[in-house]
Amino acid sequence: MNQINVGLIGFGIIGTGVVKILQKKAEFIEKKLGFKVSLKTICDLDVETDRGVSTEGIKLTKEVNDIFNDDAIHIVIELMGGYEPARTFILKALEKGKDVVTANKALLAVHGEELFKKAYELDRSIGFEASTGGCIPILRSLRESFTVNSYDYVLGIVNGTCNYILSQMSEKGASFNDALKKAQELGFAEADPTFDLEGVDSAHKASILTTMGYQKFISFESIYKEGIKGITVNDIKYAKELGYNIKLIAFIKEINGRMDVRVHPAMLDENSEIANVSGVLNAVQVEGDMIGFSLMVGEGAGSLPTASAVLGDVLEIAGDYINRKNNEEKCFATPPLGTLAKNIDKGEILPIEEIITEYYLLFQVIDKPNVLSQLTGTLGRNDISISRVVQKERAEGEYVPLIILTHESVEKNVQNAIAEIKKEGYCDGVSLIRVIN
Amino acid sequence: MNQINVGLIGFGIIGTGVVKILQKKAEFIEKKLGFKVSLKTICDLDVETDRGVSTEGIKLTKEVNDIFNDDAIHIVIELMGGYEPARTFILKALEKGKDVVTANKALLAVHGEELFKKAYELDRSIGFEASTGGCIPILRSLRESFTVNSYDYVLGIVNGTCNYILSQMSEKGASFNDALKKAQELGFAEADPTFDLEGVDSAHKASILTTMGYQKFISFESIYKEGIKGITVNDIKYAKELGYNIKLIAFIKEINGRMDVRVHPAMLDENSEIANVSGVLNAVQVEGDMIGFSLMVGEGAGSLPTASAVLGDVLEIAGDYINRKNNEEKCFATPPLGTLAKNIDKGEILPIEEIITEYYLLFQVIDKPNVLSQLTGTLGRNDISISRVVQKERAEGEYVPLIILTHESVEKNVQNAIAEIKKEGYCDGVSLIRVIN
Repeated sequence: MNQINVGLIGFGIIGTGVVKILQKKAEFIEKKLGFKVSLKTICDLDVETDRGVSTEGIKLTKEVNDIFNDDAIHIVIELMGGYEPARTFILKALEKGKDVVTANKALLAVHGEELFKKAYELDRSIGFEASTGGCIPILRSLRESFTVNSYDYVLGIVNGTCNYILSQMSEKGASFNDALKKAQELGFAEADPTFDLEGVDSAHKASILTTMGYQKFISFESIYKEGIKGITVNDIKYAKELGYNIKLIAFIKEINGRMDVRVHPAMLDENSEIANVSGVLNAVQVEGDMIGFSLMVGEGAGSLPTASAVLGDVLEIAGDYINRKNNEEKCFATPPLGTLAKNIDKGEILPIEEIITEYYLLFQVIDKPNVLSQLTGTLGRNDISISRVVQKERAEGEYVPLIILTHESVEKNVQNAIAEIKKEGYCDGVSLIRVIN
Repeated sequence: MNQINVGLIGFGIIGTGVVKILQKKAEFIEKKLGFKVSLKTICDLDVETDRGVSTEGIKLTKEVNDIFNDDAIHIVIELMGGYEPARTFILKALEKGKDVVTANKALLAVHGEELFKKAYELDRSIGFEASTGGCIPILRSLRESFTVNSYDYVLGIVNGTCNYILSQMSEKGASFNDALKKAQELGFAEADPTFDLEGVDSAHKASILTTMGYQKFISFESIYKEGIKGITVNDIKYAKELGYNIKLIAFIKEINGRMDVRVHPAMLDENSEIANVSGVLNAVQVEGDMIGFSLMVGEGAGSLPTASAVLGDVLEIAGDYINRKNNEEKCFATPPLGTLAKNIDKGEILPIEEIITEYYLLFQVIDKPNVLSQLTGTLGRNDISISRVVQKERAEGEYVPLIILTHESVEKNVQNAIAEIKKEGYCDGVSLIRVIN
């Protein structure tokens, strides 16, 4: 009987899930796969706190070298999060001849190129399915199932916190603050939810999806990120009246060799499957040139779902380790997972000003003759063509909401038009939400 | 540069898709994966007909031994369909040391155990992602991503023909015959659609999903199969009124060690994602003990989507072939795909009479006093508890439709009750549709 030994760095919520599953499923894994996985060592700064899970037979240590220097450990699971020391630890593990599995999207989004290249050099694997879309097997599908496809686009709802908040606002009419509070009470949002709400977390995942879907490393900093803090219950209500649901999306498309990669709230056709993925669920949709439409929905976070995705990679690498003893020439169909790096190019980002999409624009305008004509005139001069106009009734004060849906327009033109309209003196406020059709 | 040579048996619609993709994507594959895939030989009884695709540089032959006896061919793609000679050809290919990729669900559903065991013995791979759910990567996900999960159930819409017909009936109010005719005109149904309409095709896929999800081989004959021919526009209309959509489903669940595996039309909650998967799309939903809810949607058929799934397997096996030169001890995490057989048990089927589910029952009853009391009395005596009763208005003739929704009941009791009610003289016809909640 073969046995693979694992070292775990980071004994937090997901780490605890990994320990639980490996204990509960020890026999199941052995029977199903024909080998044994043993969690040999756990390293964390805190090895005292009771995580509600037995650690019998597992070495607990604060000294990470207990893992690196243990030649019996084949695979290191990194679940500490953050850039450092996670980056250094992964590099060290690879150098020590160990394969690595991580759920650390922030690290991969920013330092993925370095880590993948190091893994390639050293002929080691990095598994990272759990980094994107929780337990949705989107990365493995892009890598191994849809292998021959090029993608027209990748569209994801990849942040459960934001999806929960927007769903609460949409389904219960909750305000943003109340929805956030409820999400925090239920454990769906962190105490400091900034990274989630501002789209940073989704952008991490967008970066990884770009690498896997388009074989390109892009600069994480250059991804356009817009969060959901500006979305009001009114926006959601008006969206519904127009036949849309508002979701925080990660969108990726190649435009003439450059990558349109962005994270922002978007209006999605209420009849599309993905627009109806609600609560903490995640979803990723692609349009492949061979497969056509494909959608996957599943839990995007949580201890056991994420740990399940981590262990999917661990078991794939473990099986590969046992099967493959001698690697004469490297290739890239499946494992080693890290050896993607050789054939991935640098990708150039399409600046947000140059993107082309449809827009929902809500102008708070003075209710006077000629305003509509002046406003639409300004849009027209900026080459923005209108598909729909809805003037709402005046609620209070002197302003009325005027909603414009545009045909496909260039972002720069839309921003210019908005700036001009603001100067024209009849407009008190503007909301802009991009529409994905 | 590594090169993998492929032989193709069966130059039909999917085979032509394989040829097209390998030509169009030759450079793409080489750049992405670091090796070359060359289609060396195609075998078909008809090598004359123009398939609209170039066969330059490919040997065309009617003699299948040209593939088996060619030591330069590593992987054989079997796309001829049917039990024989496909079974013999696959066995021969394995014996000749070749890995096999097939989309032949009928063959795997009936002879899977034999074929997988042979592949295991010979340490060869059988890739069969394309056999189930078209290009939805459900088998790879069950095998490699959700590896540590046990499933509460697997629920699939795995026949595009039936899903198209039911969608047309539901969305356009088309009759069954008109919807079938349209499906045939559009190429969504075969000239002889019996296997699709009677649930045989879905049952083939249910058998494969059982093997992959539950590590059990079951007898294909013992799977309960009920097609969609009995579904009327009225059933669909009444279902909608009750909040359900009718879909042909494959359902799999383990009940006390026995396998509840069945194919039949079912009412699905109209608010569930899967109930809204329409047209020729397929969907597979699982509930895993670690991942919770997971749903995948995609094209279930068609030349390019199916060929894409075939090639996903070809490229995985090819990569594995190149990476793995020396296999000391077998294990089963990933490839070789065929070596599942060792750890798969015989599964015992739960007879349809013993299943427990909710039911929609439509009785055409005489519009007279006491009928409702007599009918519900008979249900009660058979231990069937009612959740909802809807009496429709009389349309024509002396019968009125009486709809009963039951709580969970044993199939045998429901069938007994129906037989008794038929004898009681006030009932002219009964429709039974199982409800999946």
